[in-house]
Amino acid sequence: MKNTVNERMYALGSKRSEIRELFEYGKKRIAEVGAENVFDFSIGNPSVPAPDCVKEALTELVMNGDPVALHGYTSAQGDAAVRKACADYINKTHGMNCTADDFYMTCGAAASLTVSLNALSTENAEVIVLAPYFPEYKVFITQAGMKCVEVKCSEEDFQVDFAAFEAALNENTKAVIINSPNNPSGAVFSEETIKKLAAILEKAEEKYGKDIFIIADEPYRELVYDAETVVPFIPNFYANTLVCYSFSKSLSLPGERIGYILVPPAVKAHNEVYFAVCGAGRALGFVCAPALFQKIVPMCIGKTADLSVYKKNRDILCSALTEYGYRVVKPDGAFYLFVKALEDDARAFCEKAKAHDLLIVASDSFGFPGYVRISYCVSTQMIERSLPAFEALAKEYK
Amino acid sequence: MKNTVNERMYALGSKRSEIRELFEYGKKRIAEVGAENVFDFSIGNPSVPAPDCVKEALTELVMNGDPVALHGYTSAQGDAAVRKACADYINKTHGMNCTADDFYMTCGAAASLTVSLNALSTENAEVIVLAPYFPEYKVFITQAGMKCVEVKCSEEDFQVDFAAFEAALNENTKAVIINSPNNPSGAVFSEETIKKLAAILEKAEEKYGKDIFIIADEPYRELVYDAETVVPFIPNFYANTLVCYSFSKSLSLPGERIGYILVPPAVKAHNEVYFAVCGAGRALGFVCAPALFQKIVPMCIGKTADLSVYKKNRDILCSALTEYGYRVVKPDGAFYLFVKALEDDARAFCEKAKAHDLLIVASDSFGFPGYVRISYCVSTQMIERSLPAFEALAKEYK
Repeated sequence: MKNTVNERMYALGSKRSEIRELFEYGKKRIAEVGAENVFDFSIGNPSVPAPDCVKEALTELVMNGDPVALHGYTSAQGDAAVRKACADYINKTHGMNCTADDFYMTCGAAASLTVSLNALSTENAEVIVLAPYFPEYKVFITQAGMKCVEVKCSEEDFQVDFAAFEAALNENTKAVIINSPNNPSGAVFSEETIKKLAAILEKAEEKYGKDIFIIADEPYRELVYDAETVVPFIPNFYANTLVCYSFSKSLSLPGERIGYILVPPAVKAHNEVYFAVCGAGRALGFVCAPALFQKIVPMCIGKTADLSVYKKNRDILCSALTEYGYRVVKPDGAFYLFVKALEDDARAFCEKAKAHDLLIVASDSFGFPGYVRISYCVSTQMIERSLPAFEALAKEYK
Repeated sequence: MKNTVNERMYALGSKRSEIRELFEYGKKRIAEVGAENVFDFSIGNPSVPAPDCVKEALTELVMNGDPVALHGYTSAQGDAAVRKACADYINKTHGMNCTADDFYMTCGAAASLTVSLNALSTENAEVIVLAPYFPEYKVFITQAGMKCVEVKCSEEDFQVDFAAFEAALNENTKAVIINSPNNPSGAVFSEETIKKLAAILEKAEEKYGKDIFIIADEPYRELVYDAETVVPFIPNFYANTLVCYSFSKSLSLPGERIGYILVPPAVKAHNEVYFAVCGAGRALGFVCAPALFQKIVPMCIGKTADLSVYKKNRDILCSALTEYGYRVVKPDGAFYLFVKALEDDARAFCEKAKAHDLLIVASDSFGFPGYVRISYCVSTQMIERSLPAFEALAKEYK
């Protein structure tokens, strides 16, 4: 094999991510013991249907649209009317002054990230991720030719450890990825936290005489469950922010690959960054975001799938797990619970969970060992059926 | 800007491709002088609607599909039933013995290429392209960290110059991209040509003790116009072939980004290559091909849009241009005419064409100076209206 294929690509493709591995195992177990006896909390695949507006928009477009224009190439940045609808919505919702030309439509959040990272990649550049973090960040940063630097969040509440963050900054720091609401912890960073981060970054920009970016990875923006939880819109607090958005979770369309990159007008090297984003999209082979799903955006933006089931699931799980003796930090958003494993080795703990057909993900690949991620974007019925298994697992450690 | 963004990405994004540049100019001219007075032959955007089966399949899926499954993530390689449908179709059509696990669904032909090239990229590797060639090949090869080596086709008929091809092979050759029917020349490589290429490559594999791949870029496979024109299926002639396919042109869905990579069972390092493809798709941020358009594949594979208009367009243009004194090699396929410019400098020639509101692309960026590409995926009416302009342009050179 040596010298036939790229070794890093082979490694990435042959060793499935732990999450995917567990998901495939779950499908196998379902075939063996039945769906009602397997409790698969492995994957972040929305469990609620897309809102009605999606079906209505698709039907309207397919029935009445001109098929050549409907399925034709859009410009590489995305259809102009679609980008204008995104700008109008962001301006109205967050008091910004964006135009269509600040938006670049993408094939979803992963593409938003790889395109942004390749656009910003320069020699020796480093990108900070706040652990626990989505494991693909490291894959994307490395692929873009940069170094992934992990900074651990506080274990108490998964908020930013400012001292550790400040210590990680240096003359090579290109960007920090902020993912709030967070996968896997569910933490939402407060306005105060974002302001502190911004102040630290501004100081560093001045000290090192260079632009340092926040890459705001925001697929979970709309997934917050309590009236008092506000997700600060980071461009309102820090100029050099790129927003990587996806409609995957808000509209329950994860397979359709539709999202955007927003380069707000206040980004200091705005045009350079926007053009570099266009160039990276081109070099990676994206051509344009899927045309039909671009066109549903103006018809559905601001609407969401019925997310109330996620809140219900969170509340049931949090209170039951706490009762059984697990240490749970109640998450404000996203659809993940990040729970301390009942032994130091989270992978060993997950193996014991597997014996109860409880499929949960060890936190090692999230850069934060000793925990497990429980995705609660599943049916409430499955959660209720799974509770005796969580209880039995806890008892093994008493 | 130095050190803020990636300079190569900036260059790619700020300098639009000549084709895109001309296309945007055309839109401006239409606003100035009216659509009926502008003859835009710049871009390869299918001008015929998708076949009825596409609308029927979309309607059926949207109206009756389970929305969670319909729009959910598929596995990274693509939905298993979709891949099986591709395998069944290829086996039936080309007498192969592929399985679903030889297919990897992609976001269209560009993604098929970037994923394949990143999968195969090793140190110092070179990829041969046969000029004239689609200019993005060079972008994709360079981005994957490899060297793009141009080999010119014969000027007489745009077929392979075997001596030049053989001379370009060396111990660093990783692959050659074969695009037949060809963009921009419209040439179709015969079975004899493919057999000769295969023999040369097999000899080189032996000589250098390594795998050398054909990357068959086949978005135009179905676009041939004469009963006697057969497009050989390259895996039947050369073992180490990856097929990069897209439904963009056959189903007239270029904006929807749906295609596949086929790693046939005969590829010598089959599993290494397939896994490296999976890894590259992951690292570049593709996640999965668009889910809804994956699912129309089993319902539409083997059908095509009504391509007869392309044949009609080709015939009208070829005979008129020949009559006016242009040197035209009648293309067997795709929807491009590659015509010798009437002066040595094709860009100067295209500028003179512009004065007649004839928008045609100089061949310099195709690695084959002195020609122009005329995309005839346009309305027949526009072609008929454009003929006096082609005639007047020719007269300027008499």
